[in-house]
Amino acid sequence: MSPKVRRQGFCGVNPLRPSKHCSGERALVEYPGGLVKAAMQSSERFTPLVVLELVSDTKEEAISWLLHRIRDKQHNGGAELMVEQLGHGEAAEEKQNPNLFLIGTSLQRLLSGAEDLGLFKEFNDGSMRGFTNANKQNFKNFHGDGDGFLSMAECQYIIKHELETLRAKDETHIPGYTQAKLYPGKSIIRRLLSKGIMVQMFPLHETEELKRLSFSWFKKIKLSVQPLDEIRHYFGEGQALYFGFLEYFTFALIPMALIGVPYYLFDWENYDKYVIFAVFNLIWCTIILELWKRFSATLAYRWGTLSRKKAFEEPRPGFHGVLGFNPVTGREEPLYPNVKRQLRVFCVSVPFVLLCLYLSLYVMMIYFQMEGWALSFHDEEPTFWTGILVFIPSIIYAVVIEILNLIYRYAAEFLTEWENHRLESSYQNHLVLKVLVFNFFNCFASLFYIAFVMQDMVLLRQSLATLLITSQILNQFMEAFLPYWLQRRRNKKLIRKVKRQQTLTDKELPLEQQVRLEADMSTYLGTFDDYLELFLLYGYVSLFSCVYPLAAVLVVLNNFTEVYSDAFKMCCVFKRPFSDPAANIGVWQLAFEAMSVIAVVTNCSLIGMSPQVKAYFPESEMQLILWTVAIEHGILALKFILTFLIPDVPKPIQIQLAKLEFESLEALKKKRAKQKG
Amino acid sequence: MSPKVRRQGFCGVNPLRPSKHCSGERALVEYPGGLVKAAMQSSERFTPLVVLELVSDTKEEAISWLLHRIRDKQHNGGAELMVEQLGHGEAAEEKQNPNLFLIGTSLQRLLSGAEDLGLFKEFNDGSMRGFTNANKQNFKNFHGDGDGFLSMAECQYIIKHELETLRAKDETHIPGYTQAKLYPGKSIIRRLLSKGIMVQMFPLHETEELKRLSFSWFKKIKLSVQPLDEIRHYFGEGQALYFGFLEYFTFALIPMALIGVPYYLFDWENYDKYVIFAVFNLIWCTIILELWKRFSATLAYRWGTLSRKKAFEEPRPGFHGVLGFNPVTGREEPLYPNVKRQLRVFCVSVPFVLLCLYLSLYVMMIYFQMEGWALSFHDEEPTFWTGILVFIPSIIYAVVIEILNLIYRYAAEFLTEWENHRLESSYQNHLVLKVLVFNFFNCFASLFYIAFVMQDMVLLRQSLATLLITSQILNQFMEAFLPYWLQRRRNKKLIRKVKRQQTLTDKELPLEQQVRLEADMSTYLGTFDDYLELFLLYGYVSLFSCVYPLAAVLVVLNNFTEVYSDAFKMCCVFKRPFSDPAANIGVWQLAFEAMSVIAVVTNCSLIGMSPQVKAYFPESEMQLILWTVAIEHGILALKFILTFLIPDVPKPIQIQLAKLEFESLEALKKKRAKQKG
Repeated sequence: MSPKVRRQGFCGVNPLRPSKHCSGERALVEYPGGLVKAAMQSSERFTPLVVLELVSDTKEEAISWLLHRIRDKQHNGGAELMVEQLGHGEAAEEKQNPNLFLIGTSLQRLLSGAEDLGLFKEFNDGSMRGFTNANKQNFKNFHGDGDGFLSMAECQYIIKHELETLRAKDETHIPGYTQAKLYPGKSIIRRLLSKGIMVQMFPLHETEELKRLSFSWFKKIKLSVQPLDEIRHYFGEGQALYFGFLEYFTFALIPMALIGVPYYLFDWENYDKYVIFAVFNLIWCTIILELWKRFSATLAYRWGTLSRKKAFEEPRPGFHGVLGFNPVTGREEPLYPNVKRQLRVFCVSVPFVLLCLYLSLYVMMIYFQMEGWALSFHDEEPTFWTGILVFIPSIIYAVVIEILNLIYRYAAEFLTEWENHRLESSYQNHLVLKVLVFNFFNCFASLFYIAFVMQDMVLLRQSLATLLITSQILNQFMEAFLPYWLQRRRNKKLIRKVKRQQTLTDKELPLEQQVRLEADMSTYLGTFDDYLELFLLYGYVSLFSCVYPLAAVLVVLNNFTEVYSDAFKMCCVFKRPFSDPAANIGVWQLAFEAMSVIAVVTNCSLIGMSPQVKAYFPESEMQLILWTVAIEHGILALKFILTFLIPDVPKPIQIQLAKLEFESLEALKKKRAKQKG
Repeated sequence: MSPKVRRQGFCGVNPLRPSKHCSGERALVEYPGGLVKAAMQSSERFTPLVVLELVSDTKEEAISWLLHRIRDKQHNGGAELMVEQLGHGEAAEEKQNPNLFLIGTSLQRLLSGAEDLGLFKEFNDGSMRGFTNANKQNFKNFHGDGDGFLSMAECQYIIKHELETLRAKDETHIPGYTQAKLYPGKSIIRRLLSKGIMVQMFPLHETEELKRLSFSWFKKIKLSVQPLDEIRHYFGEGQALYFGFLEYFTFALIPMALIGVPYYLFDWENYDKYVIFAVFNLIWCTIILELWKRFSATLAYRWGTLSRKKAFEEPRPGFHGVLGFNPVTGREEPLYPNVKRQLRVFCVSVPFVLLCLYLSLYVMMIYFQMEGWALSFHDEEPTFWTGILVFIPSIIYAVVIEILNLIYRYAAEFLTEWENHRLESSYQNHLVLKVLVFNFFNCFASLFYIAFVMQDMVLLRQSLATLLITSQILNQFMEAFLPYWLQRRRNKKLIRKVKRQQTLTDKELPLEQQVRLEADMSTYLGTFDDYLELFLLYGYVSLFSCVYPLAAVLVVLNNFTEVYSDAFKMCCVFKRPFSDPAANIGVWQLAFEAMSVIAVVTNCSLIGMSPQVKAYFPESEMQLILWTVAIEHGILALKFILTFLIPDVPKPIQIQLAKLEFESLEALKKKRAKQKG
């Protein structure tokens, strides 16, 4: 089951779209079998970049209207893109959806889109600057008419943006669908999505590129770091930052794992020596997050997302309300009173979360009862089987925790959707907060209970080990093996079907089949679950690893396989996601920092409870507690001061940014001086 | 000694510059006695706005060079301002400095300066926008050629900026002063200042305006709020924000004072009932700072400083180093290696501060010894005189604290200067940090010692009262009475002199005398000391007021007189300061927030130590401490969450800001579309 063998089934298809970079007029692709025959408005042939899928029974008038709007000139309010129907005119199989559309555009259109988006590209002097057509010749790698200047992921991102900002003019509804209301300025694509007329919109893979990337990323077993720049080039900054963080986190854990191994080997039964380890934890968890911020800023600067301004955020597709005027833009759009939303949040969501926490607490208590039964059973007649029985409650509990997390996740998504947030970012923040609080409580409550209420270090170690190992095994199964297996089955079916139709020359799939294959692949739902998993692992390590030094080793091992399974998943299991120009890991930075504060409190308490420290205060337990609290406050204060003192952006990059700022100020001054003169 | 009588001596002079707002050509002022006769280059007469004073023995060549550079056209690298020498040609008295120069300029020059500075003014639709000459007609209150559009404080700020950005071209040194080196791009004014050739540069008062302002501000005893908009109009945003904060703080204290009075009257000897008061303190100190942030944002938005971008910061006048190239601007300027500065900070400044803290601790110990002696003396033979003797050590200690603070302040300024910071903001931050740490320790260490080590609530109350009252009396004396008295003496001398020269008609001072009088007034050194005083008062109230409920009452009384004495000081004792376009109270917000965190810890501990709470845990002191710590952690966490949840800027202003941002984005898009079309 080496990754290489695994992938042959469907990743080995060959490049039908040979353009390494998207290019308007140059990359004339010879599509086999005349698959793309739809009415071409312009004389140019084009590289398909994005696929748009409508439901198979979409009304003809809606389709022709949509295509017209997409093709229409910009000054008429259109998107000025090229669209062609996939396999139109062919004898399409009955079960196949005929409404798949390929979207591409000319190079000039892409460059002007890049300027509108404020895309940052590398300048001749090595700095990153917002691209403008006016001085395009001064950008690095801009040769001739700019062929190969934009990566395919960037082109796809531009097309996505252009499609999403394609707005209704005076249409009151989508032709043929009177219930799909439109108003001037409403994004057409968002309405099509929210009414279920559009199934999906996704960017196409580049098979040649993907092969190269897969090879350098996970096909060869190596010790070198991941090709972050290539990942960014193919998947965009958001993905690359996730993999960068995963790798950073893994390397940051290595010293802890190295200390952990001898600790584990030589002090197996000495639960008292964890003080040094706890102190190490304290320092470690504070420093790595600060350093990550700097590293992340370096990456984001290199990729040009650090100083990019955020565009004005549109309402999310599912947002609904009474039509009114947006006080900011003055445009007509649905408005939903903030008071109502707050009521929903505080009167429904918050009580629901509290109820779930209570339920989780209840489950925890049942676990402790089972644990007690198993132990008493083992104590009465200790045999090999009862020895195993002792671990059973922990394993069951770990599985139940995963299931509860999964169920809660769906409930949280439903509730957050129902809260009707206007912006995607606000929706995400509320969802993350809900999920984090519950997952944190669900995963760590029992450990806190054992550590501080029962004060049983042996049980703590045992529970931690069982929880960690079980959840890792479950996760790897759910995350990599299951989707892979499902995908493989689906794939085989498709290839068999294709084979029936035609004899495949050198195992390549024709474009139509390739597009249909990708349309059937699962959709990657963003980095949320990946970060959440890392967050919980970070919690296990930073909170309690001092009592179970092998935790860090286990997490390192897990992360190594995680890199491979996530990379494999991205390349072969999921549809290509649209790239997302992130400048940092966003709300997760905050979540990890909150966890590190909790880690300080926990580790200080564990140190205070250790027998060695207690030995220093033989007569007065009160003195011990007061000292522990005082030192803990000191460390927390130091932590906050350090957060202030360590600049988030490394000095050289600060200088680069200041330089750009200064230059734009000077340019403005010069312009004004000219106007005066 | 009513304020009215007090001020007649020197504030009652009449308006020689009748222009309410500066105006280039219109406000033709008839200066009496032909005082301003200097060679006028242009045919316009002008309103003097700013005074520039050079040392009396400045070499002629330096003066004529400087005047030429100031008058030179902008495209030649000059400042294009008008300058006239004060009283030149008259038979100046021997002792008087002849090198006083009046600076003014044309209205057109001021408007273009306002654009360069990015000054925010009110637009026709009520929003605040950066002023541009291109659409000046759309700004509110812009009539005709713009006479009266800019306030005099704004004009003076523009002139200050133009003078400070007057740069050397190819001069290698100031003519006549070979040791005063120049290099291309060096600010001439800053070099003149750092070499001691220029004594000062200050804006002139407007006597008519000042009279009006004083009247509405502090001359009538009233209960209404301060005229913040007028203060801002005359002194600028920085000053107005300080007075706004002082007033806000006073009003925020009133509920506490109201609760304090009956507490004090009816429970004088009941030290146990402070728990409710401590809980009140906890909530109070968290909420008022959050609300202030919102109030301050409202003010800053109204005054147009909230969304104003900071200009590129120049090196401070005293900064020195080896000539090199600034990596940001590419200009030649002195560079000083950061490593050297860090060495100075960590190897000299930090040990010095620690040594001072140790010294302060030592003084505190002496105080406790004295206190002990006095008490034992009183206990042996209690008479009326020994009863008073008990208070003597506290009073001496309070005086010593003030003296130590004063000495330390000078040392801190010297050290921070020596650290050679490149930017004024960095210098200020280091100075504030040094001074804050020492003052906090010096003022509060003894109280913490009494509260938590000695656990003597009676002594705590007594010490707090003595410290608070003594330091308030000392402060009012040092801050208001002393400068007033010195100024009055100086003033009388001058008026007597003028009287000798000429018979004064209706008690007005001629321009020359008025300028010389203002040049002799003390210089206002910024809001540092004022904020520091408020910070310490806030500390007394939020940390320990639960044991001495009258503290809030005393602080409220102090603040009421503080408003009057500070206002009086600003209007009549000091030179007019240049306005400073601040958007918030800067580093002080942080300082007050840090204090409120300490207040949470302190109040929780005081509650935990109270007999009522102790009564709930009769058998186990450990339980009590653990609960106290747990609750304290909960409150701290809640505090941080609240800081996140409460938006710093009120919703309506957020919408206004987003609107401006959106409009500028749209304008950019339109411009691009035009370029394409």
